[in-house]
Amino acid sequence: MLKLKSVAIDTFKENVAYLHRDCPLYRTEGFQALMKIEISVKGNVRPVLAVLNIVDDCAIVDTNELGLSTQAFGQLAKRQGVNVSIAPATPPISLESVHRKIAGETLNKNEYHLICQDILENRYSKMEIAAFLVACSHNGLEREEVFFLTKAMVDTGKCLNWGEAIVVDKHCIGGIPGNRTTMIVMPIIAAHGMLMPKTSSRAITSPAGTADTMEVLANVELSIEQMKKVVQQHRGMLTWGGTARLAPVDDILISVERPLSMDSTGQLVASILSKKIAAGSTHLLIDIPVGTSAKIHHNQAALALRKLFEYIGDLFGLYIEVVVSDGSQPIGNGIGPALEARDVQQVLSNQKCAPSDLREKSLRLAGRILEFDPDVRGGQGYNIARDILESGRAFEKMQAIIAAQGVQQKQQRKAALEYSVTAIKSGYVHAIDNLNIAHIASLAGAPIDKNAGINISKKVGDNVKKGDILFTIYACFKSNYEFSTQFSNENNAYVIEKNPPVTNDNYFI
Amino acid sequence: MLKLKSVAIDTFKENVAYLHRDCPLYRTEGFQALMKIEISVKGNVRPVLAVLNIVDDCAIVDTNELGLSTQAFGQLAKRQGVNVSIAPATPPISLESVHRKIAGETLNKNEYHLICQDILENRYSKMEIAAFLVACSHNGLEREEVFFLTKAMVDTGKCLNWGEAIVVDKHCIGGIPGNRTTMIVMPIIAAHGMLMPKTSSRAITSPAGTADTMEVLANVELSIEQMKKVVQQHRGMLTWGGTARLAPVDDILISVERPLSMDSTGQLVASILSKKIAAGSTHLLIDIPVGTSAKIHHNQAALALRKLFEYIGDLFGLYIEVVVSDGSQPIGNGIGPALEARDVQQVLSNQKCAPSDLREKSLRLAGRILEFDPDVRGGQGYNIARDILESGRAFEKMQAIIAAQGVQQKQQRKAALEYSVTAIKSGYVHAIDNLNIAHIASLAGAPIDKNAGINISKKVGDNVKKGDILFTIYACFKSNYEFSTQFSNENNAYVIEKNPPVTNDNYFI
Repeated sequence: MLKLKSVAIDTFKENVAYLHRDCPLYRTEGFQALMKIEISVKGNVRPVLAVLNIVDDCAIVDTNELGLSTQAFGQLAKRQGVNVSIAPATPPISLESVHRKIAGETLNKNEYHLICQDILENRYSKMEIAAFLVACSHNGLEREEVFFLTKAMVDTGKCLNWGEAIVVDKHCIGGIPGNRTTMIVMPIIAAHGMLMPKTSSRAITSPAGTADTMEVLANVELSIEQMKKVVQQHRGMLTWGGTARLAPVDDILISVERPLSMDSTGQLVASILSKKIAAGSTHLLIDIPVGTSAKIHHNQAALALRKLFEYIGDLFGLYIEVVVSDGSQPIGNGIGPALEARDVQQVLSNQKCAPSDLREKSLRLAGRILEFDPDVRGGQGYNIARDILESGRAFEKMQAIIAAQGVQQKQQRKAALEYSVTAIKSGYVHAIDNLNIAHIASLAGAPIDKNAGINISKKVGDNVKKGDILFTIYACFKSNYEFSTQFSNENNAYVIEKNPPVTNDNYFI
Repeated sequence: MLKLKSVAIDTFKENVAYLHRDCPLYRTEGFQALMKIEISVKGNVRPVLAVLNIVDDCAIVDTNELGLSTQAFGQLAKRQGVNVSIAPATPPISLESVHRKIAGETLNKNEYHLICQDILENRYSKMEIAAFLVACSHNGLEREEVFFLTKAMVDTGKCLNWGEAIVVDKHCIGGIPGNRTTMIVMPIIAAHGMLMPKTSSRAITSPAGTADTMEVLANVELSIEQMKKVVQQHRGMLTWGGTARLAPVDDILISVERPLSMDSTGQLVASILSKKIAAGSTHLLIDIPVGTSAKIHHNQAALALRKLFEYIGDLFGLYIEVVVSDGSQPIGNGIGPALEARDVQQVLSNQKCAPSDLREKSLRLAGRILEFDPDVRGGQGYNIARDILESGRAFEKMQAIIAAQGVQQKQQRKAALEYSVTAIKSGYVHAIDNLNIAHIASLAGAPIDKNAGINISKKVGDNVKKGDILFTIYACFKSNYEFSTQFSNENNAYVIEKNPPVTNDNYFI
């Protein structure tokens, strides 16, 4: 038996075990080639799986020790020094289904369940997850397969039940920086009295997720009991979904999907709907932004996506409405948690300087959700939403929810480093590339540094003179400042032309 | 700037960098989510790429240090303590081509070249390589694409030139344990006077590669100069191909392909032919074993594979002949480096106990290769090969080549642990599962422990009584002994039926 040791290395969503090359009990090199090992300890029913790294330094692990990375040590949940044994991991049987999917076959309900179960139990390497995702992406999934995958993702996690007939939710498929409408929509809906217990995600590769932005103002890591208490009192909340273990397989798939820039239709729908169903939603508004640098480039593709959402929603008894919105540029001015939270607070407190596109889009989305209420007359949702916002009731509701979740106490490092990106010629802004703007904000340190990010000064349609500030980068660390300013010098994401662009004033297409 | 530190962790073909969480210069978490970093040092033109792990223990790396895993430290090739800087790695542009391949498109010559270049420079994560392989596998590759990929793999490595008109080679597509014909064929061919400078691979997931088995007898890690000297004198050699850097991208692809159990036709052909072309071969015999537990299950598939080999060979001016062989069970008796080397030596020294299937198959393959010689009359190859073997000339040639490469001096640990797997019923052996037998031998410690592996006592067609020994497992380590015996108790790989099987005495179908 080996003695367990915690090795303080954070290996980012991959379990790693450390074994000394001269370990007298095991032949380390043979194990390594076999890819994964199982770590067993008395009292644990299921072994923990990990990739093996071989160590040649007794200070890291001694020859009679088994080291585990921070993640793996946490999963094993035992004290240092306990006896552990290791064995080659049995390849998961569900991989055979993945190979059949690679070969172009259609998988059944049980196969998707077993795949999700094995992924949840960490039996798949990242390579194997990538293989599964590519196989699903390229072949596409049959509609039924999207249903099976969604169901498997729901069934392998926890589900919330709010005990009411109408539990509303909204979701944007993503890709538009600054698009923080949820933080405006939720308090409007809750102020109206509808139940909107919103769980959101943190950013993975984007400069901010809704949970990251809300966290600037309030605690977002609530237990399910705490969530229920907030919602009971205020009809709304905005928390991080991670603590609730809703469709946890989705999080693992996303951790591979995002760095691979994979976003297949079937996976996207299964990912979004599994989370919503697990969160106990009954009525869902989905926002699909369309634009050349958005996730969806054409209306035709948005329409196909809408049909798939509706098909899967119906099978689960989840009522879905889809809106297609303008995804041609970022929404609002701030990109990065604190800058986005500032925009949100400006809208909620009806300040003149509030970004009008964020305000208008939020009101329209809120209006659609309000019409889920049988007592709201068709077409009146927008006006009700605007009244709630303008009367200050949305702001008050948000303040109450922030207080109930716990006001954020943590002091954040100031973003003392500023850099203004200016127009290299005069003309009109024709386009702002969402992907590049998001990347610059990420390089600047968002979302890890809450105050880092971008403030946009010019939007599509604006007239600019050479030398005018297009946007300003904020960073806390010199290294982030350099990475982001260097990238923005190579690609500032703005297209400026001599004549004004033909703009579309409709937020919804 | 950070101080470079070597961290003695062997991360198995993946570069890892270690940075302390409290590093004052960089925001570690932001970097980690961005997947890869570039490490730059004065004097190096190209940065080294690595995945980032975050460390919370100053004993591993201090806050002003950058640690590199064994592999990455070797690539950077600088002393500890030198100043290094890091930056987020730019995603390789060729990934866009991979996404187009995932979407079902055909890629051009230049795209395959750029993909291979980026893979070679370690710019792809294993997930990204997996995505590329699955995309190629599922869509299949057009014939032209297989050519482009092969050419790209050749062009991104070194090439050998032997300066003769006929340079012969043989290759088995793999999957059959114990199939060590090359070590018998090569000395026969060289004794005949034809040039056969054979480079072979080590095992990746199998219990032995030809290079591993040859290493039991001789040094196989020769420089190109040493290889040329041996070949000049003896007309043959058998070395490990890794030192020569022939089609190095192939090795990287295989390191992902094997654990994923991916073996698509296009990849297989590009992999094999890129190595042969880079090795300077002009005439190549390819062995395709067919069987239910072989890589190729049906003759029809073998035929399609043959056509693809011929098509690509012709484009490179490499003459190819393909033989389809019986892949229904292991060849020879030993599985694992030392046990296979024993079989080979028995055949070469014309011992009575030599496994007849290994001898016969080797003679037939050698016969076909001898007929590449314009002076050998069609149909006479086999007889010439047999004469060379029976006269002892093949044995002498092998001894001379072993001496020239350097007799193996390293003492290997004895495989003191033995376990015999016996028949659970009486009858006739109908099948031996290649995959399961190979897995048992791997679990026993092969090829890392040269003496570990399996000795087969009963082959297909043999009559067995309940309790007869089917095969014996040899292991050096108690842990390996337990893993392999436990697996063999669950699945001993033998199918035994009451009546004798219908056997096919032809080694070639």
